Amino acid sequence: MDRTKIVQLYTHAEELGGQTVTVAGWIKSVRDMKNFGFVTVNDGSCFKDLQIVMNRETLANYDDIAHQNVSAAITATGTLKLTPEAPQPFELTAETIEVVGASAPDYPLQKKRATVEFLRTQQHLRPRTNLFRAVFRVRSVAAAAIHRFFQERGFVYVNTPIITASDCEGAGEMFRVTTIDPANPPLVSEEQATASNGELTAGEVDWSQDFFGVPASLTVSGQLNAENFAMAFGDVYTFGPTFRAENSNTTRHAAEFWMIEPEIAFADLADDMNLAEDMLKYVIRDVMATCPDELGMLNKFVDKGLIERLEHVASSDFARVTYTEAIEILEQAVAAGQKFDYPVSWGIDLQTEHERFLTEQHFKRPTFVTDYPAEIKAFYMRLNDDGKTVAAADCLVPGIGEIIGGSQREERLDVLERRIEKLGMDKEQYKYYLDLRRYGTCPHAGFGLGFERLVMYLTGVGNIRDVIPHPRTVGNAEF
Amino acid sequence: MDRTKIVQLYTHAEELGGQTVTVAGWIKSVRDMKNFGFVTVNDGSCFKDLQIVMNRETLANYDDIAHQNVSAAITATGTLKLTPEAPQPFELTAETIEVVGASAPDYPLQKKRATVEFLRTQQHLRPRTNLFRAVFRVRSVAAAAIHRFFQERGFVYVNTPIITASDCEGAGEMFRVTTIDPANPPLVSEEQATASNGELTAGEVDWSQDFFGVPASLTVSGQLNAENFAMAFGDVYTFGPTFRAENSNTTRHAAEFWMIEPEIAFADLADDMNLAEDMLKYVIRDVMATCPDELGMLNKFVDKGLIERLEHVASSDFARVTYTEAIEILEQAVAAGQKFDYPVSWGIDLQTEHERFLTEQHFKRPTFVTDYPAEIKAFYMRLNDDGKTVAAADCLVPGIGEIIGGSQREERLDVLERRIEKLGMDKEQYKYYLDLRRYGTCPHAGFGLGFERLVMYLTGVGNIRDVIPHPRTVGNAEF
Repeated sequence: MDRTKIVQLYTHAEELGGQTVTVAGWIKSVRDMKNFGFVTVNDGSCFKDLQIVMNRETLANYDDIAHQNVSAAITATGTLKLTPEAPQPFELTAETIEVVGASAPDYPLQKKRATVEFLRTQQHLRPRTNLFRAVFRVRSVAAAAIHRFFQERGFVYVNTPIITASDCEGAGEMFRVTTIDPANPPLVSEEQATASNGELTAGEVDWSQDFFGVPASLTVSGQLNAENFAMAFGDVYTFGPTFRAENSNTTRHAAEFWMIEPEIAFADLADDMNLAEDMLKYVIRDVMATCPDELGMLNKFVDKGLIERLEHVASSDFARVTYTEAIEILEQAVAAGQKFDYPVSWGIDLQTEHERFLTEQHFKRPTFVTDYPAEIKAFYMRLNDDGKTVAAADCLVPGIGEIIGGSQREERLDVLERRIEKLGMDKEQYKYYLDLRRYGTCPHAGFGLGFERLVMYLTGVGNIRDVIPHPRTVGNAEF
Repeated sequence: MDRTKIVQLYTHAEELGGQTVTVAGWIKSVRDMKNFGFVTVNDGSCFKDLQIVMNRETLANYDDIAHQNVSAAITATGTLKLTPEAPQPFELTAETIEVVGASAPDYPLQKKRATVEFLRTQQHLRPRTNLFRAVFRVRSVAAAAIHRFFQERGFVYVNTPIITASDCEGAGEMFRVTTIDPANPPLVSEEQATASNGELTAGEVDWSQDFFGVPASLTVSGQLNAENFAMAFGDVYTFGPTFRAENSNTTRHAAEFWMIEPEIAFADLADDMNLAEDMLKYVIRDVMATCPDELGMLNKFVDKGLIERLEHVASSDFARVTYTEAIEILEQAVAAGQKFDYPVSWGIDLQTEHERFLTEQHFKRPTFVTDYPAEIKAFYMRLNDDGKTVAAADCLVPGIGEIIGGSQREERLDVLERRIEKLGMDKEQYKYYLDLRRYGTCPHAGFGLGFERLVMYLTGVGNIRDVIPHPRTVGNAEF
């Protein structure tokens, strides 16, 4: 189709002014002033709309257009008239307007302001609203910036598997992936059980008959797989969906979400934090440069402090504090009268209220908390010389809390094996992971960034359901 | 860690020549010539290796290094000596070499050439081989090129859901996603069955107790969701994992693979083919420019015609032929003595042998076959004026067969409803999809590109298991 996108009108207004152009888009509003009228259209190519002016005398189907409903698809041909004195830089004086697809009068998103809760029931239509047009453009631009950041630095993008036969991290409940019919599952027979030397029990589900021949789940993290590739390419990253079957109905949890997990070889925790800080700043700057209209709308209607906060984060050094120091800060705050629901003492897992106090009240900027007690962190994190903390670093940001969890990995075979044994884990399950420590191990580190949390941070949107095209939460897989 | 990556040595050889640098990497080979020796290392930052020269007189731990096994991790500091007369442009004269992580003598990938079949059992280590170093770098570069292609053109990246409650396309068997224990599933009671007015049957699995409250599966395509966003943003694309639970054990099928699915509004089938052709050429050119060493290796050891074929495709127009014409070509070939396993006549689904004949023998270049019989294509494809074919376009490429399947979508509400009814599908399930035709419908089109097939095409690798970091196929979810 021969048409000009509205974004091109804005980027090439000077040269297109006075020219005849054809645009295609969806009607946002029609104002009929009797002898002339205004049709506002958007074609999705940019946040800004185009105002079309139509004249009853020259437009044969003036009345037809004047009666179109919101969201009707049209094409319009006319002269682009520059209007330096008006709020918008130009308008299109229509010669012809054609209705491509009318919109039925019961269109659910009429001009009156709809709640985000209602819009969640209209997920197929909500991208047409200003709010979601802004959110999902920012999401796309942020994703592209993340790829560009890593590719420019020579990182190799690795698509780690979504379906996995191992629950390596033990990170919460997992979804089963299966082709077995639960109404009629194949069961282990007495003969099989006897022949298995006690490995199988008669009457339990016979997983050898499932698609993969073993029980399989949706991944909770690509990290262990990514390490395989970091030991070959040095610097790698994943960017893909991950899953949690947790029955938690909060504004920050979804059953399906995207994660970015870089993994870097010949690197320690400081390198890891530097990478995370550089990446966050890169993405923030890129979104600010690419989406000024979207951020302007979000700053005006969603979160009045948004732009100021993003500017502040992009230009300030992140705070870095050890867990032990953080506990002292929290204890001092309690002594000075600060109330927390959860008591503070060395060894506790920091709660969101603690994290938000540190990053919002105390440091007033993004904050890395490092060197957590080994007991509350994952088995693969590197044991510090004190024998009780590990080289972990969580990045907390104002308004969200934890956005990044990272660590230097335990690269010492003997230390890692002792840790796995101590935790009562099955060493055989980690054979490949241990192999990386047998054949040319080296210090390495990585982190996981929850992409939706980043988008919430970039947009000021408070509910994860509103930054995911079609969110999946407990009880909800519609659309 | 303060070190120079090997890629930097190659890109900045002139300025680094004569300087002292520190590198870190994994040993690929050690040659001990008694008084001096050569250590070849690679750090993954580029395909090329670095040759380190060590001298027994000046290197205190010469013997230790000389006895290191393949894949040991080391750091080396020394002078970068430019060697314009030698095959490699420089070498590192070592002052110190430190073993960071030794490699056990039973390292499974010794220098002797391993088969790809054996390497599939060593997926955690195979990225360290030249073959997989090339393949997975190309995969990463191709993925980045795809994102760049679409972002440069203003497309919005949409993460369509992985978990879905609908089997919209009916595209083959799907994996169930569940938290129900198949050994002990909740069942519909007599009371529930009675109360449900026949919707539920006593004794069947009670899906309302599953995580999402309904039966859920892994997506086979993000297209229908992507259309929701194309009707707001105009141009969108997905790039994410998709799944097929097909019990097919071929070199071209995996249970988990990545797909790219652009969707464009105010566009017809010709626009769609133009987009597909532009995208393929863009990616090929980008990989050729970015990965000359990788392609050189693949061209030498995997597929001798690779580079010539890629150059040819990047510079030639794709053929375009209707299905009806394609059938005539095949029938004429049969008349002229060409043998096919499957008989040819109008109405058949083209088999791989037919596709390959068209693209390899007849047109000798990538070929779009368009306007297939409606009966063998999906319900959402736009019915042509002849009433019997639909506006579909499959792109066939030499050596692979179908790599892209696209179509203009049926945007006419009445035609689409008739099609859904005719096929006996449940209209209620497609309520949202039909809504897009009720509220501002417009001509639109899109396609699906199987990313792994593209990587096979770009690398000449013949088995899909060797272009996926950790492939999932029937009976196989290891690693």
